Amino acid sequence: MIQNNFAVGIDIGGTNSVVGLCDNMGNISSSQSFPTNNFDHPEDFVKTASEWIESKKAEYNIVGVGIGAPNGNITSGTIEFAPNLPWEGQIRLAEMFQKATGLRTILTNDANAAAIGEMTFGNAKNLTDFVLITLGTGLGSGVVIHNELVSGAHGIAGEFGHIIAERNGRECGCGRKGCLETYVSSTGIVRSVFELNSEHKLSSALLKSEAIDARVVFEQAEKGDRFANEVIGYTAEMLGRSLADFACFSDPQAFVLFGGIAQSGQKFADLVKSTLEDHILNIYANRIEIRVSSLHDKNAAILGAASLILS
Amino acid sequence: MIQNNFAVGIDIGGTNSVVGLCDNMGNISSSQSFPTNNFDHPEDFVKTASEWIESKKAEYNIVGVGIGAPNGNITSGTIEFAPNLPWEGQIRLAEMFQKATGLRTILTNDANAAAIGEMTFGNAKNLTDFVLITLGTGLGSGVVIHNELVSGAHGIAGEFGHIIAERNGRECGCGRKGCLETYVSSTGIVRSVFELNSEHKLSSALLKSEAIDARVVFEQAEKGDRFANEVIGYTAEMLGRSLADFACFSDPQAFVLFGGIAQSGQKFADLVKSTLEDHILNIYANRIEIRVSSLHDKNAAILGAASLILS
Repeated sequence: MIQNNFAVGIDIGGTNSVVGLCDNMGNISSSQSFPTNNFDHPEDFVKTASEWIESKKAEYNIVGVGIGAPNGNITSGTIEFAPNLPWEGQIRLAEMFQKATGLRTILTNDANAAAIGEMTFGNAKNLTDFVLITLGTGLGSGVVIHNELVSGAHGIAGEFGHIIAERNGRECGCGRKGCLETYVSSTGIVRSVFELNSEHKLSSALLKSEAIDARVVFEQAEKGDRFANEVIGYTAEMLGRSLADFACFSDPQAFVLFGGIAQSGQKFADLVKSTLEDHILNIYANRIEIRVSSLHDKNAAILGAASLILS
Repeated sequence: MIQNNFAVGIDIGGTNSVVGLCDNMGNISSSQSFPTNNFDHPEDFVKTASEWIESKKAEYNIVGVGIGAPNGNITSGTIEFAPNLPWEGQIRLAEMFQKATGLRTILTNDANAAAIGEMTFGNAKNLTDFVLITLGTGLGSGVVIHNELVSGAHGIAGEFGHIIAERNGRECGCGRKGCLETYVSSTGIVRSVFELNSEHKLSSALLKSEAIDARVVFEQAEKGDRFANEVIGYTAEMLGRSLADFACFSDPQAFVLFGGIAQSGQKFADLVKSTLEDHILNIYANRIEIRVSSLHDKNAAILGAASLILS
């Protein structure tokens, strides 16, 4: 009897962290979610998660642990000063898990994990050169060149959310101004609602919503609300322009959009594609696809993390 | 007796094209220059250059031909619609040389050739991850990640001269507006003289020059001319800002500046470094060097082309 290999995928999030078991076909057999803030120290989280992993060893042939984390550094296996996590400073999380479980452990940032996941199990299976863009609270990116994830000289490549999209633009959490993720992210979309509303006050169902978030903007746009569609168009344009610049670097086959905004539908991807073609250097014209991730369920992050081991 | 291996390096330029023989220590044994416009068709150039190569075969053990050319595509070995060459359309130059000489032939664009040359013989010898920036009539780039040149999915990676540095900025030869090379290149510097002069008219020896070119601007700056220094500062700032964005992609160890402007002295590189640090995302701060090419003689392009074979 051939026993399937399994990898543990751990997704570290600002709100919840999830630990799951994944086989090399991309099936998740078991998973558990923990509120990240329940753990004052990373040691406490490692202890709890490792006990969960240990309890699975009798039943599953576990070959390693993959971790996707904000500000994860693939070279050092550390989380470096992640502003959205309760844990401060530089955390040697890969080493801690390796010691606690005895399993080979690889850690990287969420966007890199998603890129590997998409290449292993998702919509980038047949691509050799692509850039995955995660659109969530912020904007992350994972760059794949000739089938290899680009980690960078210091383990921190792919910070596309922090290229300057608008000089002296919106204030960013990084301390600078005009970063792409202040426009293209779920929080950026809400800021765009206020900016565009300040510029030309339109009547819109959107502005009567109790709480405006990116999901509401997409819902109203779907219903034909003109102002909501303007916000979506503005967001897609900011992203498409920046992708046109980004293409000049690695000449990819595709950009793959991942995360809540990307999953709102093909329409957003089509708008991004159209702006990309309007702004791109002629030699790249009609050569670069905009794809939407096919890993849209809540397990995408675990799959991505597990694929660091399984790919 | 061990016979040294030699590669032919061919540098295709808008004015002159040079063919040379290079050994694996980076010594050039013999070279010849031809005015590119003397050849109405690429076939004529291939014939003449191949005859020169043939005449060297008795004396040297030649193992291949490397070609650096504007708009060179490393995947297809073609020159694609190069605006500065007398030859039109898509030219299968690598194939033509391979047939004419019987030697393995690799063609790429000038900046990629320079990057490989710098890695093999120059100031990037100890680097695994860097971006070479050529500053000449235009601005080109060659991206090296984990010791490998990034060619891209379609063979046309590294067009950093065409990221948009200033939205709706200066008109570029590519048909768009605000491309980096319209600011940071020898022609861009001359345009900056006119732009800054139109903004605030300063008395400057520079404006009394018979013909203003980048060399004159650097000479006057060296002599302490305030206006010339302002132009240089503006150029360095445009480049430094853009490099700060570019760093977010591949997280390199260094940017290596190559070509006439770069060779004007360490001062320009220092200004670029200072702007880079002012604008860079915190995680990259003080981690990325600005180096100046050490291949400054006129043979750099031949060395780069030959290194495609010798590296």
